[in-house]
Amino acid sequence: MGPKRCAVASEESLMRIFTVPEAPGSTLSKIEQEISHNLAGFLNENIAAVEKPLHEIEKDFQSASIPEEPTFVSDYAQDIMEQLVAHSVHTASPSFIGHMTSALPHFLLPLSKLMVGLNQNLVKIETSKAFTPLERQVLGMMHHLTYGQSETFYQKWMHSAKNALGAFCSGGTVANITALWIARNRLLKADGDFKGISSQGMFAAMMHYGYKGLAVLVSERGHYSLGKAADVLGIGRDNFIAIGTDKNNKVDMVAMREKALELESQGIKVMAIVGVAGTTETGNIDPLNDMAQLCEELNCHFHVDAAWGGATLLSNTYRHLLSGIEKADSVTIDAHKQMYVPMGAGIVLFKDPAATDVIEHHAEYILRKGSKDLGSHTLEGSRPGMAMLVHACLQVIGRKGYEMLIDQSIEKAQYFADLITKQEDFELISQPELCLLTYRYVPKAIKGALEHADEQEKLDIYAALNRLTASMQKRQRETGRSFVSRTRLTPEQYDNQPTVVFRVVLANPLTSYQMLNDILEEQREMAQHDPIMKKYLSKYL
Amino acid sequence: MGPKRCAVASEESLMRIFTVPEAPGSTLSKIEQEISHNLAGFLNENIAAVEKPLHEIEKDFQSASIPEEPTFVSDYAQDIMEQLVAHSVHTASPSFIGHMTSALPHFLLPLSKLMVGLNQNLVKIETSKAFTPLERQVLGMMHHLTYGQSETFYQKWMHSAKNALGAFCSGGTVANITALWIARNRLLKADGDFKGISSQGMFAAMMHYGYKGLAVLVSERGHYSLGKAADVLGIGRDNFIAIGTDKNNKVDMVAMREKALELESQGIKVMAIVGVAGTTETGNIDPLNDMAQLCEELNCHFHVDAAWGGATLLSNTYRHLLSGIEKADSVTIDAHKQMYVPMGAGIVLFKDPAATDVIEHHAEYILRKGSKDLGSHTLEGSRPGMAMLVHACLQVIGRKGYEMLIDQSIEKAQYFADLITKQEDFELISQPELCLLTYRYVPKAIKGALEHADEQEKLDIYAALNRLTASMQKRQRETGRSFVSRTRLTPEQYDNQPTVVFRVVLANPLTSYQMLNDILEEQREMAQHDPIMKKYLSKYL
Repeated sequence: MGPKRCAVASEESLMRIFTVPEAPGSTLSKIEQEISHNLAGFLNENIAAVEKPLHEIEKDFQSASIPEEPTFVSDYAQDIMEQLVAHSVHTASPSFIGHMTSALPHFLLPLSKLMVGLNQNLVKIETSKAFTPLERQVLGMMHHLTYGQSETFYQKWMHSAKNALGAFCSGGTVANITALWIARNRLLKADGDFKGISSQGMFAAMMHYGYKGLAVLVSERGHYSLGKAADVLGIGRDNFIAIGTDKNNKVDMVAMREKALELESQGIKVMAIVGVAGTTETGNIDPLNDMAQLCEELNCHFHVDAAWGGATLLSNTYRHLLSGIEKADSVTIDAHKQMYVPMGAGIVLFKDPAATDVIEHHAEYILRKGSKDLGSHTLEGSRPGMAMLVHACLQVIGRKGYEMLIDQSIEKAQYFADLITKQEDFELISQPELCLLTYRYVPKAIKGALEHADEQEKLDIYAALNRLTASMQKRQRETGRSFVSRTRLTPEQYDNQPTVVFRVVLANPLTSYQMLNDILEEQREMAQHDPIMKKYLSKYL
Repeated sequence: MGPKRCAVASEESLMRIFTVPEAPGSTLSKIEQEISHNLAGFLNENIAAVEKPLHEIEKDFQSASIPEEPTFVSDYAQDIMEQLVAHSVHTASPSFIGHMTSALPHFLLPLSKLMVGLNQNLVKIETSKAFTPLERQVLGMMHHLTYGQSETFYQKWMHSAKNALGAFCSGGTVANITALWIARNRLLKADGDFKGISSQGMFAAMMHYGYKGLAVLVSERGHYSLGKAADVLGIGRDNFIAIGTDKNNKVDMVAMREKALELESQGIKVMAIVGVAGTTETGNIDPLNDMAQLCEELNCHFHVDAAWGGATLLSNTYRHLLSGIEKADSVTIDAHKQMYVPMGAGIVLFKDPAATDVIEHHAEYILRKGSKDLGSHTLEGSRPGMAMLVHACLQVIGRKGYEMLIDQSIEKAQYFADLITKQEDFELISQPELCLLTYRYVPKAIKGALEHADEQEKLDIYAALNRLTASMQKRQRETGRSFVSRTRLTPEQYDNQPTVVFRVVLANPLTSYQMLNDILEEQREMAQHDPIMKKYLSKYL
């Protein structure tokens, strides 16, 4: 981006940006007013519908030199409207049903501005004051939602200096890492002369405890952040063992138990088992009660990654689907997914308020012992006051409000699943358990051809359908009217072969049933003109 | 917090929060307008001057039950003004010179709102589009600022799918962890049958390479996040070895070299050396050139934690103070410190664009190989578009604007240091190298008494002065007119005994010289009435 006019760096103009607010008629103020008065309209009008190729967009972001001279705010605002906003993604669009971002409640916009204006740092009381008890309350509320302990329990622990019922994180990845960090440090704790893994490290810990290795078991549908956690924590990705799933994408408990016993018989300690409560790809929930039982037998940490599905606990209609989550030692829930909070609000909860003892840390100038500084048991240090936005949503939407939203989303997914099933030329791949499902486009003639195909023909058709699905998904995104994502599964009906599918998440309250009909229409239309269709599949039609 | 009136959860009211903006006359809109028109006034008027005790504030955040029924936004807005905003911390106040948060440029407020409204997720192109090249450009600019490579270099690497010149992080802690994660994985890389620590974990890595241990060396003034990194990464806090500093709080290179050689002779591999460029407690910069030299000799990773001081590179007047930083393999810089960006903008830079190869990861539904998704080499997953705010500041303030701000801050610190030195009853403890200094209140009579005191008397006076400093700092904070922080150092003039000191950071452009005079006056006045003064020190007066 290049400034159109050169402002001049002077002390006076510099002071102005810290003291004089944007004038009401300025470009940036006008943009802000549009956002305030009609966010959906602003996004619809300013985000270009048709996708510009990435290499074209990159041309506006080529210079690696920081400009010497300042730019006028109005010029900058103009530039980013054209070069950035126009080519951003309309994540709030009701036809954008491919990922976990959704529309935001409007009251969060002014509140976000308040949050930024206050610029609190939650690492310590001295820079956050009332935000600290607020964050502790939000953690208490989410803990109560998950574990349902008594009022006495929360009165005792919620604001306790020595304890934490959870930790706010930038997202689910840091939440999962934090949970497994605690699991690791609790397993390899101080013992006799050994001062614990926190002090002496993994190598000394393994020598002391005499384990031949550590392992973490999780469904093959586990989120990729768990692999990252295994890497970062020194466990190793190969020791993060993926267990197969049944046809409903739930972990196979027989296989998991067998694997666990096999590992333990080899001297490899199962450090933790991770249950997935809402897999990223199919939205299914592992058998949490059975997993809790196995963890108890193995005496290992039970973590539930409910980053996406955790919000379902807010619905009394559907929270039974997560039964067993209350037995988990730790639980990840992302408020920026189904809780409608903007990006950057991950939460990890700990059943035992003393769980964080093994990761507690202090410093001379902050986080002094006995202080209530939140930073003494978070992986991150300085952090913004995102907890306020979660707090606001819990109050303004209320549990019943969330219940309505969640129930609607699940029912919408059921509707869409039925709709897909009724089409001759579509195929539902995974049934929605929550509001996430997968499907693909398969013309009736191809379905017929598959029934009579020999082994090689089948594989050829599978390959062509995969290419077709990927091609359609890409083109639909580029066309810009709607967006579904795609992933690769290994469903039974495709002989467990790698199968590319469309993936939709129906959490946006503004997505109408009509839009779902339209999306199928659009895809059907697109398929007719897809070059992959013509090249590889027309012979079967 | 309790709602005053109960709203009713209905489908209609729920849809309204997603579709109908806040009415211009609503409580929340009025709050927002105040913030827009006069942020400083809003903060001054709404944040209570006199501190309310934490246990009093906690009373408003007691319930662990999520309210069943929704609350009206206007009621909620009213509540948080009284219960949260009133008891937050005025981090932007020019007399709040105790921490690294400062005033924000006004244009960042509407831009933050735009960022939230767009709600992009930087983990992948599909949910961030133009924000991805923008973030890559910001990383390129910061890389160029630090390493000053050629234009060809940036044209080649800045937007390369396989590479990353750095990573945006929620803060300096994640930045430091990322840097040391890379250092660890590069050291313990795949080799023959061994697939690398990323795959096989720390224990297998140590067995393969035959090291007896790993160590990281850093000055005793290193940030506490480095200890956390050592813990998380499985290295162990005890193997994070603190090296003493000279009287200027710079690491003692003789001691560091000796320690490194001693460790290596014991079969303990020095994995990394961390240079501090702006220590959190005293603001001093380690001898980076000498450290780079030692790292080369040891063939180990050189990381520079310039979370706070890195912005000094923007000043041609003072960037020479960080000479040698361009030799670092990785550098942490927090834009939310001296770059005046709101909380949540950490950056880690890598000299070698291929550095992230050892932490690269992929998944089926995103971060596919060959994609330019930023999430394939960040520790975090989903992340907001904070890079936009850094981008905006770099353009609107410009390098020269930053230079003015940084030069002014450093000169202000020099002024304050001189002012303190001139006072009979204050004592400068650490000279400012950047805009951070430490000092304490020591009445002239006590200075005199110390000259003639025997060993025991000295220790008694030291202890009393420590208590006095802590007491004064606490009371000044509670009084609410101004704020300095405190830490504990071991300065020569106090026989290297633990010494509690006031710590000030002078990065707020609105802090005037007069305010610095006033702060000393306030402290002098406070000291007269301090109970510690009366109880333990009056006999010397």
